[in-house]
Amino acid sequence: MAHALALGRRGLGRVWPNPAVGCVIVRDGRIVGRGWTQPGGRPHAETEALRHAGAAARGATAYVSLEPCAHHGATPPCAEALVAAGVARVVAPLQDSDPRVSGQGFAILRKAGVEVTTGVLAEAAARDHAGFFLRITRGRPFLTLKLALSLDGRIATATGESQWITGPEARRAVQGLRACHDAVLVGAGTARADDPALTVRDFGDVGQPVRVVASRLIDLPLMSQMARTAAEIPVWICHGPDAPPEKRAAWSGLGARLLPCALQAGRLDPGAMLHALGQAGLTRVLCEGGGQLAAALLTGDLVDELQVFTAGIALGAEGQPGLGVLGLSRLADAPRLRLVDISAVGGDLRHVWTRHEKA
Amino acid sequence: MAHALALGRRGLGRVWPNPAVGCVIVRDGRIVGRGWTQPGGRPHAETEALRHAGAAARGATAYVSLEPCAHHGATPPCAEALVAAGVARVVAPLQDSDPRVSGQGFAILRKAGVEVTTGVLAEAAARDHAGFFLRITRGRPFLTLKLALSLDGRIATATGESQWITGPEARRAVQGLRACHDAVLVGAGTARADDPALTVRDFGDVGQPVRVVASRLIDLPLMSQMARTAAEIPVWICHGPDAPPEKRAAWSGLGARLLPCALQAGRLDPGAMLHALGQAGLTRVLCEGGGQLAAALLTGDLVDELQVFTAGIALGAEGQPGLGVLGLSRLADAPRLRLVDISAVGGDLRHVWTRHEKA
Repeated sequence: MAHALALGRRGLGRVWPNPAVGCVIVRDGRIVGRGWTQPGGRPHAETEALRHAGAAARGATAYVSLEPCAHHGATPPCAEALVAAGVARVVAPLQDSDPRVSGQGFAILRKAGVEVTTGVLAEAAARDHAGFFLRITRGRPFLTLKLALSLDGRIATATGESQWITGPEARRAVQGLRACHDAVLVGAGTARADDPALTVRDFGDVGQPVRVVASRLIDLPLMSQMARTAAEIPVWICHGPDAPPEKRAAWSGLGARLLPCALQAGRLDPGAMLHALGQAGLTRVLCEGGGQLAAALLTGDLVDELQVFTAGIALGAEGQPGLGVLGLSRLADAPRLRLVDISAVGGDLRHVWTRHEKA
Repeated sequence: MAHALALGRRGLGRVWPNPAVGCVIVRDGRIVGRGWTQPGGRPHAETEALRHAGAAARGATAYVSLEPCAHHGATPPCAEALVAAGVARVVAPLQDSDPRVSGQGFAILRKAGVEVTTGVLAEAAARDHAGFFLRITRGRPFLTLKLALSLDGRIATATGESQWITGPEARRAVQGLRACHDAVLVGAGTARADDPALTVRDFGDVGQPVRVVASRLIDLPLMSQMARTAAEIPVWICHGPDAPPEKRAAWSGLGARLLPCALQAGRLDPGAMLHALGQAGLTRVLCEGGGQLAAALLTGDLVDELQVFTAGIALGAEGQPGLGVLGLSRLADAPRLRLVDISAVGGDLRHVWTRHEKA
């Protein structure tokens, strides 16, 4: 099952709106088939593994990292394909949250006499599929917030100098984060100040995440890296209802997709923005700043995972803060997160925090 | 030798201005004597271990975490004591930097026919004795800066609320840090805002570090915790030449020791302050803030080790910064440190950084 989960993770960031599933078929103690959800979301993992196994699937055990699908969509249901191939037993960690599946995949298997075992590595699988599930249950993608900070929580000097605070190893780790997300999201201020490409570089053939910019008035330079490459790698813009028509037309003309979002206190409502991204099919979004957008997401309790890279450098109170104003009146109201992982990445420190489950 | 070093570390924070040395005497593969520098700085480790070993020291090997002393001070030289006890071999990591010793301890031993081995665990010993050495070579103590920060580098909300950002385990780790330093240093702002006791609590019988407050004009409340306890646990005040005589008299009357320090750009010169503390005998000082003093020490390149406790909480850009203004004009001028240790402490993250050795 651990192997099936690992195979499934190969699809993270490339299979939206589908889940990134892995499948391993074992017969007489030997692996006879392996598969994972292919880029774009199909073929499904089971289809791949069954194709690989061929006749050897008969009487075998299939380890699948999520309940096999039960509905006739673009592909026939995987539960039926497993039955047809003569698989004797299916081991899966979790039931699918998708109402079109939700137990029905297991029901099809059991009805056909296939033994079904669930609950194996369920926690790990829930983590891998968190984005897929969140989109179904709450209509929004899983949100990872990345912050690359100085020791004192700054992202640039007073004059805006920020290259480089973290080292090459940490910057490469950020590329890895981009590669396993469906989209990378930045605020308009960051887009204007840094002119980032937001692409995955030097990671082989991994596909590129959608680039999303949050800009109420679409106040974005048309000569930017993103504008120049919008025809090749998707650029989506979350904008307010009051975005000027000529800006909309200009970016549409460049190939960008426009997502109108509601406002909240004069700014893009972060909840509405994530909902729009979920509607558009995204399951995993990586926010890379700036500080104001990061603060809005934290305040809205929308940050599912926080990835911090801390560099061994001090920039002082005059430096630009990595997190904007939260508007807290009491310490008890401050967002709290739970530490889940720490490691050294080159000369920098990487620490990962998740949502603090409320008692 | 690792055991001798561990024994020696028991004295850290309690033996200044002497080094915290450990000694293990081994004969025929068995430990026959152990000792470490006693509180106040004497008896020395070797004296203790030899007393413990008695006649068993004859023909034995003594592992000492620093070159045995060679000068007649308050105690007779340890090198001579080792010779008199009939020790056959002495293993030590390092030569002492003290000009009164500096190779002469080893010379006495060799001249008497004792075999001397050096260089064993020299790096670890250099770390343990860094404060003792720095005081001799540069006239100032080893400085550890402690910062307890939110994820975004803040130490309090906009309204000054700071209890508690880190959890009980991290706060206990800070007590442990205090216990192995000769003194705890804070700025006047922190002393006024937090009214800290700066004592070691719940750590058994460890002795108490000197409390040092940096306050140019001795602008400190006489009704504070430190004022009330100044007669029992030392309070020292680093002040400027322009501190009002009545303030000096009041604090002297309470039992505080006054250390006049030079100014630099209208503020206490951090280098002069540390020099005064070194003159007074301190070898290891822990600075616990505030942000302005921390920034001055970093700017002065006086921070030898940085201990950061990061809590899983965000306080926003309106929160109070843990580090004051550094006055940097270029990113290349920013202080850089090297990551040496990371760990989880309760729900918080502890990361330790040291001076970045310049190429």
